[in-house]
Amino acid sequence: MFEHRSTFRVRYGETDRMGYMYHGRYAELFEVGRVEALRALGIRYLELEERGVLLPVREMHIVYHAPARYDDALTVITRVVSMPNVRMLFTYEVRNEREDLLTEAEVTLVFIQAATGKPCRAPAWVIEKLGPYLR
Amino acid sequence: MFEHRSTFRVRYGETDRMGYMYHGRYAELFEVGRVEALRALGIRYLELEERGVLLPVREMHIVYHAPARYDDALTVITRVVSMPNVRMLFTYEVRNEREDLLTEAEVTLVFIQAATGKPCRAPAWVIEKLGPYLR
Amino acid sequence: MFEHRSTFRVRYGETDRMGYMYHGRYAELFEVGRVEALRALGIRYLELEERGVLLPVREMHIVYHAPARYDDALTVITRVVSMPNVRMLFTYEVRNEREDLLTEAEVTLVFIQAATGKPCRAPAWVIEKLGPYLR
Amino acid sequence: MFEHRSTFRVRYGETDRMGYMYHGRYAELFEVGRVEALRALGIRYLELEERGVLLPVREMHIVYHAPARYDDALTVITRVVSMPNVRMLFTYEVRNEREDLLTEAEVTLVFIQAATGKPCRAPAWVIEKLGPYLR
Repeated sequence: MFEHRSTFRVRYGETDRMGYMYHGRYAELFEVGRVEALRALGIRYLELEERGVLLPVREMHIVYHAPARYDDALTVITRVVSMPNVRMLFTYEVRNEREDLLTEAEVTLVFIQAATGKPCRAPAWVIEKLGPYLR
Repeated sequence: MFEHRSTFRVRYGETDRMGYMYHGRYAELFEVGRVEALRALGIRYLELEERGVLLPVREMHIVYHAPARYDDALTVITRVVSMPNVRMLFTYEVRNEREDLLTEAEVTLVFIQAATGKPCRAPAWVIEKLGPYLR
Repeated sequence: MFEHRSTFRVRYGETDRMGYMYHGRYAELFEVGRVEALRALGIRYLELEERGVLLPVREMHIVYHAPARYDDALTVITRVVSMPNVRMLFTYEVRNEREDLLTEAEVTLVFIQAATGKPCRAPAWVIEKLGPYLR
Repeated sequence: MFEHRSTFRVRYGETDRMGYMYHGRYAELFEVGRVEALRALGIRYLELEERGVLLPVREMHIVYHAPARYDDALTVITRVVSMPNVRMLFTYEVRNEREDLLTEAEVTLVFIQAATGKPCRAPAWVIEKLGPYLR
C-alpha cells in the first residue's frame, strides 16, 4: 500500500449557509490528494498528460460522516491499495485536527490515450514507481 | 416514483483543461436537480430550513460514462423512488442533447433537527406531498 | 446599446457561512450573462473558439451593494455599450426579485488568436452582428 | 505596510478549457491570502466572526496580465497599505515560479456588526495588531 497525507484549511468560499464545507467541494480535495500522492512517488500528473495520457475520473463514492467547518485544518489521507491496470483506484479518509473521521471516499480513474480517446493500460513508468509499495 | 427534469448549459467555469465538465461540479447539478424536483412537488427547500430542518448530504455515488463539454445543454433527470424516512434518496441521470447517458448518480441526504443537530424523520408535510407518487 | 437579461437561482453551493452568495461566484454569473447576450445576437461563443479566436478576461471590477441569498431569483442585466475593437467591454447589474440593485460590474475581455496567442481585432462577423445596436 | 506571501498550486478543478486558471477562481486565492495575512498578524478571521463582526467584500478589482496554468506554483502577495476604518483594503500581486506578474488586484471589505447588519469601525484589537506596520 502507498499512503500520502495532504493538509487543507477550509476556505470561506468552500463553506455553505449551514456553515459546512459544501459536499461538492470534497472532489477537489481528493484531486489534490492524489496529485500530491503521485508527486511524492515521482509521478507528475502534468507529465502524464504531456506524454499523451489522460486520467479522467470514472467513478466517485463519498460517505460524509461529519461536517468540516470554516478554518478547520483537514488532513486528506490518500491510499493506493492495488496496482493500476486500465483503471486506478484511490481511497481516502478526511480527518480534522481532533482526528475525527469526517469523510471516506473511493475514486476510480481510467487511463485514456489523448490521441484516440481510448482506454489504455497504465504506462510502464507509472507501474514502476508503484512497484516498491504494491505487488 | 416521482421524476423531474432540469436543464443546464455547461459553463466555461465548469470546464477543465481536458475540455470536460469538471467531475466535481456535478454535485451542484444534482443539488439543483433535487431542489427543483422538490419545488415541483410544492416543497421549498428554504421552507424546510426555516421550519428548523436541515438536509445535508450523507452519501454521494457518481458514475461518469462520458464527458459533458462546454456549452452542452444537459438534462438532469432526478428521481425519488422510495418514501423518505430519516434518509431521503435521490437517483440521477445526466443526458446531453443527443440523449447520450453521461452520468448516473445516487445521493442520500439525512433529515437533521437544526436545534439539536440530531437526525429526525422526514416532516409529515413532506411525506404528504410525496404520497401521490410513492406508496 | 445592446442589453440582455438572464435569470439565475442562487444555489446552495454558491452560498457561504454568512448565508450570502459567495462574492467569488459572481464571475460565473457574468460569464453566463455575456455568453447568453452573445447568443441572443447570433454569436455563439463556442463558434468563436472553433474559428480560432479566444476571448479571455483581461479585467473585472465588481461593486457589491447588497448580498444575494440562497434561492433568490437573480436577474443579470448584461450590456454592450461600445463597439469592440481588440477589447470588448461588458457592463452588468444584478438585481433580485424586488428589483434591489445587488451588484454592478464591468468585465473587459481581449480577443486573442489561438494559434499565436497574440491579441487581434474583433472578427468582422462579430462586429456585423453588433452593428444594429452600436454605432 | 504589512506584507504576506502565500503559495498555491493551481488545481485541475481550477482550470478551464483554455488551460488557464479560470478568472473567477482568483477571488478564492485572494480570500486565503488575506486570511493568512491576518493570521500572521495574530488576527484569526474566525475569531472576528465569533466576536460578532462580519467582514464581507464590498469591492473587487482584478487585472489579469497573463494566465496561470495547471500545476503552476503561485505566490499571492497580500498587502495592507492603510489603517482600516469602516473599510479595509487589501492589495494583491500573483506571481508564478519565474516571478512573472500574472495578476494584480484590490479588494475592499467592510466591517459589519452581525447583530444589526450595520457597518462599524474596525475593532480596537484589530487596529492594535496593525499598529506596528501602519501609522
